[in-house]
Amino acid sequence: MNQPDRSPKTAVLAPQTGRLFGVGVGPGDPDLLTRRAVRVIEQAEVVAHFAARRRPGNSLRTIESLLRPEQIIERLEYPVTTEAIPPEAYRELIDTFYAESAARVARHLDAGRDVAVLSEGDPFFYGSYMHLHVRLAGRYPTEVVPGVTAFSAASAAAGMPVATSEERFTVLPGILPHGELVETLRSGDAVVIMKVGRHLPAITEALRAAGRELEAVYVERASFPEQRVLPITDHDGSDAPYFSLVLVPGRRLVAVDALTA
Amino acid sequence: MNQPDRSPKTAVLAPQTGRLFGVGVGPGDPDLLTRRAVRVIEQAEVVAHFAARRRPGNSLRTIESLLRPEQIIERLEYPVTTEAIPPEAYRELIDTFYAESAARVARHLDAGRDVAVLSEGDPFFYGSYMHLHVRLAGRYPTEVVPGVTAFSAASAAAGMPVATSEERFTVLPGILPHGELVETLRSGDAVVIMKVGRHLPAITEALRAAGRELEAVYVERASFPEQRVLPITDHDGSDAPYFSLVLVPGRRLVAVDALTA
Repeated sequence: MNQPDRSPKTAVLAPQTGRLFGVGVGPGDPDLLTRRAVRVIEQAEVVAHFAARRRPGNSLRTIESLLRPEQIIERLEYPVTTEAIPPEAYRELIDTFYAESAARVARHLDAGRDVAVLSEGDPFFYGSYMHLHVRLAGRYPTEVVPGVTAFSAASAAAGMPVATSEERFTVLPGILPHGELVETLRSGDAVVIMKVGRHLPAITEALRAAGRELEAVYVERASFPEQRVLPITDHDGSDAPYFSLVLVPGRRLVAVDALTA
Repeated sequence: MNQPDRSPKTAVLAPQTGRLFGVGVGPGDPDLLTRRAVRVIEQAEVVAHFAARRRPGNSLRTIESLLRPEQIIERLEYPVTTEAIPPEAYRELIDTFYAESAARVARHLDAGRDVAVLSEGDPFFYGSYMHLHVRLAGRYPTEVVPGVTAFSAASAAAGMPVATSEERFTVLPGILPHGELVETLRSGDAVVIMKVGRHLPAITEALRAAGRELEAVYVERASFPEQRVLPITDHDGSDAPYFSLVLVPGRRLVAVDALTA
């Protein structure tokens, strides 16, 4: 940073901007941070993180022990907590929110401060960071630090391999329509259903319709101290936290398991 | 380890076995090891790794700087380099290989030595470790340490988000039949095609048939110093290394990109 300009012909030094980092902090356990993520977070002048309203922010909790008092924390708080408003209104609100968040981050970058934007899991895997990336990466030096996804942590917690060598593997957001869930589950592929939350009853219904509820495993807050793993048939059907997912091993794996049991 | 037996009724102390660790070492860059992976590898008495014939082993290369001279290295070498033998013969060879590998690891565990089995990427995401896990996890204390997958590193390298919030995301092994590749690509979902290697011409053909070749990005050895990223239409069609994959962003993301460009 702030290296001397080596070009003798330049009369005016271009101001040096800060660097943008999209940093995957992994599934929650601070031990599952990568060494690169640790260094980037420790060295950044600004640490930005997304958070739901009135919630502390999960990604910040993961990296709390790394923070120095002089670092600036930018909390980017979603304007809505649920999807309980009409889709069009939601889309407009959230677009404005991402544009304003990008502007807040840009002010730090323009002032020459490096900004580490935290992402739960991996930044480019269903992460909000991408909405800043598409707005800022063309204007500032940018690096994305990949992280461990929640589904990897969940399968490790369940002791259950998800996909094998010749198998298709599909990630389904729990919000998808019933027909699409059932159709994908019927294929027999390895499937992870993410963002379960209040969709759990609908997901259980889809698993039953596809005849795969006996293989499905529910994992809540994988890698957190309060982690829970149970067969989905043992779940009481109440709302699941945001950090929960359902693993459905591919039919090929179920066969391997039976073979070696 | 070696805690005193607290049961006064036990006359003979059960010998303490070692612990089995399935350790994801990430996509290749040692900086993308998690802190947990580093500690487990440093402390294990035995480090086991899979390797192709006459090759040094990629996972070992990633963690080389962590090794201590007194650690035992178990090289588990695949008996075949290509699929150029009949499928039935291949399956038998590879089954025997996994059984023998499990027995080699078990001997260390029985002798009380902790064994860290290295996995490129994440152990349960298309990793060979699962073949040891299904044979050994029921008999020894076992922990799986999740890791950063190659597709996360590739999308970071390409600066290209892969999947957004309401999108289906599918991983396809390059070996799948043409029809299945084309059908999945036609859906418009976000897709990663892994294990490209000698299947590159067939994959390019499938992308063209599905009308998605202009969006597809080829990434070779993501996170390694020799990493390459290029539009698939710029690839000369020659064989790709094992560590290469193709990213096809979801149609939704392509729309977001156009919006903010």
